[in-house]
Amino acid sequence: MKNENIPYKIYLEESEMPKSWYNMRADMKKKPAPLLNPVTKQPMKPEELSAVFCEELVAQELDDTTPYIEIPEEIRNFYKMYRPSPLVRAYCLEEKLGTPAKIYYKFEGNNTSGSHKLNSAIAQAYYAKKQGLKGVTTETGAGQWGTALSMACSYFGLDCKVFMVKCSYEQKPFRREVMRTYGASVTPSPSETTNVGKKILAEHPGTTGSLGCAISEAVEVAVGSEGYRYVLGSVLNQVLLHQSVIGLETKAALDKYNIKPDIIIGCAGGGSNLGGLISPFMGEKLRGEADYRIIAVEPASCPSFTRGVYAYDFCDTGMVCPLAKMYTLGSDFIPSANHAGGLRYHGMSSTLSELYDQKLIEAVSVKQTDVFEAAEYFARVEGILPAPESSHAIRVAIDEALRCKETGEEKTIVFGLTGTGYFDMVAYEKFHNGEMSDTIPTDEDLAAARAKLPKID
Amino acid sequence: MKNENIPYKIYLEESEMPKSWYNMRADMKKKPAPLLNPVTKQPMKPEELSAVFCEELVAQELDDTTPYIEIPEEIRNFYKMYRPSPLVRAYCLEEKLGTPAKIYYKFEGNNTSGSHKLNSAIAQAYYAKKQGLKGVTTETGAGQWGTALSMACSYFGLDCKVFMVKCSYEQKPFRREVMRTYGASVTPSPSETTNVGKKILAEHPGTTGSLGCAISEAVEVAVGSEGYRYVLGSVLNQVLLHQSVIGLETKAALDKYNIKPDIIIGCAGGGSNLGGLISPFMGEKLRGEADYRIIAVEPASCPSFTRGVYAYDFCDTGMVCPLAKMYTLGSDFIPSANHAGGLRYHGMSSTLSELYDQKLIEAVSVKQTDVFEAAEYFARVEGILPAPESSHAIRVAIDEALRCKETGEEKTIVFGLTGTGYFDMVAYEKFHNGEMSDTIPTDEDLAAARAKLPKID
Repeated sequence: MKNENIPYKIYLEESEMPKSWYNMRADMKKKPAPLLNPVTKQPMKPEELSAVFCEELVAQELDDTTPYIEIPEEIRNFYKMYRPSPLVRAYCLEEKLGTPAKIYYKFEGNNTSGSHKLNSAIAQAYYAKKQGLKGVTTETGAGQWGTALSMACSYFGLDCKVFMVKCSYEQKPFRREVMRTYGASVTPSPSETTNVGKKILAEHPGTTGSLGCAISEAVEVAVGSEGYRYVLGSVLNQVLLHQSVIGLETKAALDKYNIKPDIIIGCAGGGSNLGGLISPFMGEKLRGEADYRIIAVEPASCPSFTRGVYAYDFCDTGMVCPLAKMYTLGSDFIPSANHAGGLRYHGMSSTLSELYDQKLIEAVSVKQTDVFEAAEYFARVEGILPAPESSHAIRVAIDEALRCKETGEEKTIVFGLTGTGYFDMVAYEKFHNGEMSDTIPTDEDLAAARAKLPKID
Repeated sequence: MKNENIPYKIYLEESEMPKSWYNMRADMKKKPAPLLNPVTKQPMKPEELSAVFCEELVAQELDDTTPYIEIPEEIRNFYKMYRPSPLVRAYCLEEKLGTPAKIYYKFEGNNTSGSHKLNSAIAQAYYAKKQGLKGVTTETGAGQWGTALSMACSYFGLDCKVFMVKCSYEQKPFRREVMRTYGASVTPSPSETTNVGKKILAEHPGTTGSLGCAISEAVEVAVGSEGYRYVLGSVLNQVLLHQSVIGLETKAALDKYNIKPDIIIGCAGGGSNLGGLISPFMGEKLRGEADYRIIAVEPASCPSFTRGVYAYDFCDTGMVCPLAKMYTLGSDFIPSANHAGGLRYHGMSSTLSELYDQKLIEAVSVKQTDVFEAAEYFARVEGILPAPESSHAIRVAIDEALRCKETGEEKTIVFGLTGTGYFDMVAYEKFHNGEMSDTIPTDEDLAAARAKLPKID
């Protein structure tokens, strides 16, 4: 075991926790493209967005100039219940790999929701409460976001209506039960409770659902119910803003020990974890103060960065949301049901998409069998059972560490361990039983989904 | 929210973590009664115990004079991966209850095994490895111990054979899958793979098993296999010794802020968590340096302290283990299948039994519907989904805090939050659906089990 003066886990003091979120967009010279009204194709005005989202969140969504936004005290108090999260030095993993690389991971799974999603859930619930709303609606895929939002709503006494992608609803009854513990109502999507759900069911009978469908249903209910708004757990600028707490804590912990990372790695579905983790580092990069290799890791079965196009697209299947310019596979794209590894969204955060387009971020895609192999290896060596989503980052961190072993370079690698795999044991079981395979979309699959992209002049 | 200078979570520095375990027995004037050979009824000799247990663990089991036993560096390194665990100030719970009491809990659930069991698992695996063994056998009920031992064995490259109580094996497939992730083999008990299993199945066809049966099977396999020993996750003196790390960390964290608890509360099944949590406080009490109210909380459906007798009894159903003097319901006692709240063992740690007999510990029993009510309340207010076992302590901590509200006393309450409830959602679901009831053994049930206690002169 390397003998260094760095503890296994770096915890910030409560007094060292961030008091403001950091807004990367403020330091971007070329800003992310604005959301467009799907009918007029003009940038969405605050008053239009306010029909769907809470007012203060709309302001955050559109603000691309203010670098620091204060975290309200109520949210900071909630953060204190489960944060700071540890920045872990992976001594055991380094030793097992025999690498000269120094590996750190920011572990966001030590809370009941099991993931980083709680960082934004509590912020969104707070602003909904502050606006005097009765409740919020949302969608959830694997269930991490729905669980996080249920916890946040319970804390502030808000009603919480969750549309859960049907295949997850059926495969993860325990996730549903955790949400019920927090008083949320959970509806499998697509459902007969909304017009858009009925339409999707009529067009695709027997469908097991998708995030895009569930978003459409949740938005419809929010817009049609007095005192409700819709909240979203990823993709949006506001979510990346709230998730910046991950990166700010990571940077503060590294700074305490004068550690400068060479490579920062995060998994990317909609981009909330990656965007949060990298934000202060990207800030330095954008301001020309430092340079870092930043790697987004996505599943080969849903490769929006590596095989998508950078274009305006619908955020949801029902096409009720604004249009966003992003790397996308097309809102009609649904990854193979065989894909167990999470990160199933067809698009990617506009902010990250613009950074990727400016070549400030790299992206790689990995196969799920390789991901689960890395997950099990990591669980045994580091004693944490990782979520499949997080394991995408583990896979690439291990690959980079092995590259260092070849070259002898002592690089410092930081990756985001976004959550635990307690509710993903069905997928692990498949892996153990040798029943897991890789399903990679063909060029024809992608072209078909791409053909349905909206035309924007 | 009370405004005090104490953070929500007190974390020790790595350098402040305990370097020795504390052995309460060294400070007891009247020692716990020795284990007896079930045939000769004489105290077990080290060489007899060594057929079942690892040598160094036998030495720890029998040592009732050495107060501090050094924690080997390899174990301390493993502890650093998931310890120190936080001592949490329950500000939100206090506010919600409106109590002047100050409530703290030591949270042991932030590791993949989900409970405190890992503290002893890693120690036992270490000594097995050091002795050059191939592997170990054990039993598990709810699965926390089996998971912890699987993790520990995987870390040291030991084979791990787990006998899992059949009803848990069937109700908790995900627990089984976590153990498989760590390379353990898991057999539902009673099984046809052992003589004692076959005998039990013949006598009680269709039985869903018990901890006592699973222990008998695990011991039989350990004794009959070259290079294997049996390890146990609770009850034994050695386990309480390893678990003292909980109490030592708790005391160090409290001392940092000059906090002196009035009441210390822990759930009690076999006694490993309670014994560990209270150890340094009990040490002070035994040495006359301080006084504390110490409360053991047990389920009304398995009330060994409150309705058992203090007598020599078998530790297992198959009667292959040594006899231990303890508060017991009789080794034939099996709690109602209706009981979902864990803590199902028929007996109680000899050390704790002796302390209880000396009136140094109080005990209360609680009904499982009250326990789950407290669990859900706590989950919503403190943001942690507790294990049913841990929720026994939560129930009594809340009751004591409400008593303080009546009297206006500002008592300081510390309780042990031993684990998370992620794998107990079937029980939570029952509770949510109003399908949970209380099954309390009748006096006749208890008398029948007691009638089978062995006769010791």
